Amino acid sequence: MDHNDVRSKDIKSMSVSELDDYAAFLREKIIVVTRKNGGHLASNLGAVELTIALHYVFDMPTDKVIWDVGHQTYAHKFITGRGAMMEDLRCDGGASGFPSSKESDFDTFITGHSGTSLSMALGLARARDINGTNENIVAVVGDGAFTSGEIYEALNDLGDRPTPMIIILNDNKMSISRNVGAMSKYFNKLRVNKDFVAMKSNLKTDLNGLPFVGKPLVRALTGIKNKVKEGVVGNKFFERFGLKYYGPYDGHVISDIISSLELAKTSAKPVIIHLLTEKGRGLKDAELHPDAYHGISPEGESKLRSMSEVAGKTLCELAESKKIAVVTAAMTDGLKFNEFALRYPDLFFDVAIAEQHAVSFCAGLSKNGVKPFFGVYSTFLQRGFDQVLHDVCLNDLPVTFLIDRAGAVGSDGVTHQGIFDLSYLSLIPNLAIASPKDGTELRELIKFSVGYDHPMAIRYAKSYEIEFLAHEEIKLGKWETFIKCDSPITVLAVGRTNEIAVKIKNANIVNARFVAPLDSELLDSLSGTVITLEDNILHGGFGEEVRNYLYGKCKVINIGHKNEFCDIRNVKSAFEFSGLTCENIQKIVDNELLSLENSQKV
Amino acid sequence: MDHNDVRSKDIKSMSVSELDDYAAFLREKIIVVTRKNGGHLASNLGAVELTIALHYVFDMPTDKVIWDVGHQTYAHKFITGRGAMMEDLRCDGGASGFPSSKESDFDTFITGHSGTSLSMALGLARARDINGTNENIVAVVGDGAFTSGEIYEALNDLGDRPTPMIIILNDNKMSISRNVGAMSKYFNKLRVNKDFVAMKSNLKTDLNGLPFVGKPLVRALTGIKNKVKEGVVGNKFFERFGLKYYGPYDGHVISDIISSLELAKTSAKPVIIHLLTEKGRGLKDAELHPDAYHGISPEGESKLRSMSEVAGKTLCELAESKKIAVVTAAMTDGLKFNEFALRYPDLFFDVAIAEQHAVSFCAGLSKNGVKPFFGVYSTFLQRGFDQVLHDVCLNDLPVTFLIDRAGAVGSDGVTHQGIFDLSYLSLIPNLAIASPKDGTELRELIKFSVGYDHPMAIRYAKSYEIEFLAHEEIKLGKWETFIKCDSPITVLAVGRTNEIAVKIKNANIVNARFVAPLDSELLDSLSGTVITLEDNILHGGFGEEVRNYLYGKCKVINIGHKNEFCDIRNVKSAFEFSGLTCENIQKIVDNELLSLENSQKV
Repeated sequence: MDHNDVRSKDIKSMSVSELDDYAAFLREKIIVVTRKNGGHLASNLGAVELTIALHYVFDMPTDKVIWDVGHQTYAHKFITGRGAMMEDLRCDGGASGFPSSKESDFDTFITGHSGTSLSMALGLARARDINGTNENIVAVVGDGAFTSGEIYEALNDLGDRPTPMIIILNDNKMSISRNVGAMSKYFNKLRVNKDFVAMKSNLKTDLNGLPFVGKPLVRALTGIKNKVKEGVVGNKFFERFGLKYYGPYDGHVISDIISSLELAKTSAKPVIIHLLTEKGRGLKDAELHPDAYHGISPEGESKLRSMSEVAGKTLCELAESKKIAVVTAAMTDGLKFNEFALRYPDLFFDVAIAEQHAVSFCAGLSKNGVKPFFGVYSTFLQRGFDQVLHDVCLNDLPVTFLIDRAGAVGSDGVTHQGIFDLSYLSLIPNLAIASPKDGTELRELIKFSVGYDHPMAIRYAKSYEIEFLAHEEIKLGKWETFIKCDSPITVLAVGRTNEIAVKIKNANIVNARFVAPLDSELLDSLSGTVITLEDNILHGGFGEEVRNYLYGKCKVINIGHKNEFCDIRNVKSAFEFSGLTCENIQKIVDNELLSLENSQKV
Repeated sequence: MDHNDVRSKDIKSMSVSELDDYAAFLREKIIVVTRKNGGHLASNLGAVELTIALHYVFDMPTDKVIWDVGHQTYAHKFITGRGAMMEDLRCDGGASGFPSSKESDFDTFITGHSGTSLSMALGLARARDINGTNENIVAVVGDGAFTSGEIYEALNDLGDRPTPMIIILNDNKMSISRNVGAMSKYFNKLRVNKDFVAMKSNLKTDLNGLPFVGKPLVRALTGIKNKVKEGVVGNKFFERFGLKYYGPYDGHVISDIISSLELAKTSAKPVIIHLLTEKGRGLKDAELHPDAYHGISPEGESKLRSMSEVAGKTLCELAESKKIAVVTAAMTDGLKFNEFALRYPDLFFDVAIAEQHAVSFCAGLSKNGVKPFFGVYSTFLQRGFDQVLHDVCLNDLPVTFLIDRAGAVGSDGVTHQGIFDLSYLSLIPNLAIASPKDGTELRELIKFSVGYDHPMAIRYAKSYEIEFLAHEEIKLGKWETFIKCDSPITVLAVGRTNEIAVKIKNANIVNARFVAPLDSELLDSLSGTVITLEDNILHGGFGEEVRNYLYGKCKVINIGHKNEFCDIRNVKSAFEFSGLTCENIQKIVDNELLSLENSQKV
């Protein structure tokens, strides 16, 4: 049958060589759509055989497979009838780059944050036991996600009350960049287990020898089960959590994966299957440089200026003379901290995918006289909310949060929007919050924060377009007036919305650098109508704070994102949807001018 | 010397028998102040000898000791010159029940949430290495806190780049109630190690034989170091994280603890010392029932009605007919879930101190057709913020959060105030938020949520005073008008502020049951002045949302807690400080009436 028409149920009747052919087909499809639309190339290439094996063994969607993070589900999407949507991967109307239960029943959840799969799977499994049904529950977790504390919390719970479920450790020796931490070292030890080698040579011969097309492999496998030895490694770590350990197996040999899954299905105890995969498998460049291919941009994407690069460079400058440290939770590349990591290895801490720890760790650094900068994507800092509030801000410690990917993020879509941070951060006492209009201002804000002896958050989008000419000196809670004219209308713009604001006519334009504290002196001087612009949801954000401050004094119109999850996959459309356009704002300004004129006539 | 005058430095020159006497003195003091003011009796009694040993061995505050959670620092507070403050423990002006760097330099941080100590200590230690100094860094962690994911994130990081520091595992076999999870089982195995017994008999004889008073034990210890065998247990778990393991030792034999600490000080590798302690040691009742004594209320505290009890009972009723599950993160007692746990063990999940996991686990339960109720203190749900947003609300799953200890909490003070939840929850799309005025309404809201197929949060304080007579049926987003009169003033009260609102004269009084969604129909009908009352900070809370809704239509006055950390230690004072009193609100109502009258005259 045409590979384009293959669906989950069809997989079950394929022969080994057919499955291999289909894997090659999927790999090609993934390369093509990712080259066109951008996305997570390397991790998806690494998961092709695993995905096929899962559909071979399990009856989805009755059996439930949870993909941790979920950026490795492209093959799964092709198999579950989303080939057409995949043509527009990561674009509006196309398939999301992450699992989405809105797209298909084969995706159990919408996910995009790391380390939640075991918890969710355990919930599904225990609900199954309450229901008295017998579906299989499978969680697929990368070795990177295994550094996340929530995984450990789930393992601890699972060990307390063992509940049958299957965990697949998809071990590609990487999270996004190099994997860090004790667990990574541990997985390294498991990898060299000799059983792996044995299994590879025996099993492949047996299975590839099957001549007939369509006969379920499972029957053939029954006879050779004995060859698939249960993991014989002294695997105390997983045993401690009540898990049976199988592996490691070659995660690119479909028949091996199938046999291990069949074996795991029969277990009354929870099982962990250790698969060794190669990120970027099948694409030479990606195999050699999987970090660079973790997420790739679509070909021909216009070259915007990178805020992240400015942050990385500024930190390098600072390290020459100041006692600073730079912390990341497995985002060295995305944050453009590579140069810092190379030049100042003793001042650089990649703590793995562990945002909670990263924040408390920064509290410790700062308390002992080193100024920490925690670089983090806006959406991931949500994971450290309590630590920001309790460990840093309650203790009033001089930690600086460099919050990248703030605001609408484009192709990653709903799971990665950075549109909540101004709201969840500005409710926290003691925290100064700033947002630069361009690279120069980001640089100046970072430098300012070194001398600022309290918690500070600097939030910015990945990129910017306009480098402004003028820059007033940074002062805490002071804004910058660009355009002062004889208008009763004032536009207060946060961060990259300044790029829109400066094009507005017949209004005073102010760069509201600090979202907290507000510039009360400037606010007190205002009259007429105030329009606020922010790349954040309106609820609890900058605009509402300004409106509250000016309550009863000025008319305040807030423009920002609606209070809803936003799955718009490009920044321009998200801005248009929220009225963050020159046209819309100019219209509001003009209307306000008109109505103010009219009221004066009366 | 008078035991009341003993300070950290004095400890170092005491003999073993003097130290033992002093321990007895501290134990008595702790019992007296805790009986009078309430507090964490059992855990503090368990940590007396450990605390003395730490002050004997280390030079605080240059050497830094981080107490995880910090509810076990009463002895430490006596030793560090806070005896007088301890008389007013947990009262305004007295000592906090938790560490506070505001009280003393001997407290490195303000802490009250679990699982952060290793991260903070690692930050201190790595800053020390950047600074090139050589102070000792010690983290004291209970076995309960060891179930928290952040601990694991810190261990993983420590294992990546081993940094000398000392971790003390204060193992009392309990968190707050029974300890749960695989780690707990593991600690059980370590406890039976035979080296422990050996150490006990040898060392005690040697040390107790020392005749001289004041001679530092450390010198005497040098000769017998060989007897203190380094942990010989096959301790792979901790070794995996690069830790040297010593123990287990008797945590009530000061000399044993001292010798283990002296040994650990000399290690170039990070060390974990396993101490076995008894929660409630020295108080017969507390030893037998440590859970009941974890936190005790001061003698003679007036008996308010318990909201928690209503929640627990209602869940029992529901379990008779509905497919529900109840989840807690180690708070069975405080939440009054004991009866449910006993009657419905298959539907009850204590997942240990693991709020992140608890939330994602609930997402899993609900996705597979079981209705989960996650009972959690308001301040601890902060730990699961990202999971509430991403796993539950983005997926629009019918999980109900029963948020206890919301609003001002009294004696626990600044680390436990539940005054942020309305703000951090109402920024999350898809989440209904309700707050009951009394027990009956809590019961009805819980029942309502069973039929509500979306995420819902019900937040309430620990106790309430007034059981209201009338109750309108619960409808999503519908409020309840108590008093409808001919006044242009309307008071909108959330949760227990209704107890104040009903005493206000000359105003319409509305119980704003739902904070999200708002009752738009009722709001649309309003004119005149609206006064909002909430037991939450103002920023991003209920009042500001109402003000935004009514912008340009009504004058809205918001009354709630100020946007700052609040260390007021009784609810009444906290309410007074924030203007949440009948007198204040009546005055505002009267003034508004007057000014409205005057404006009509003009």
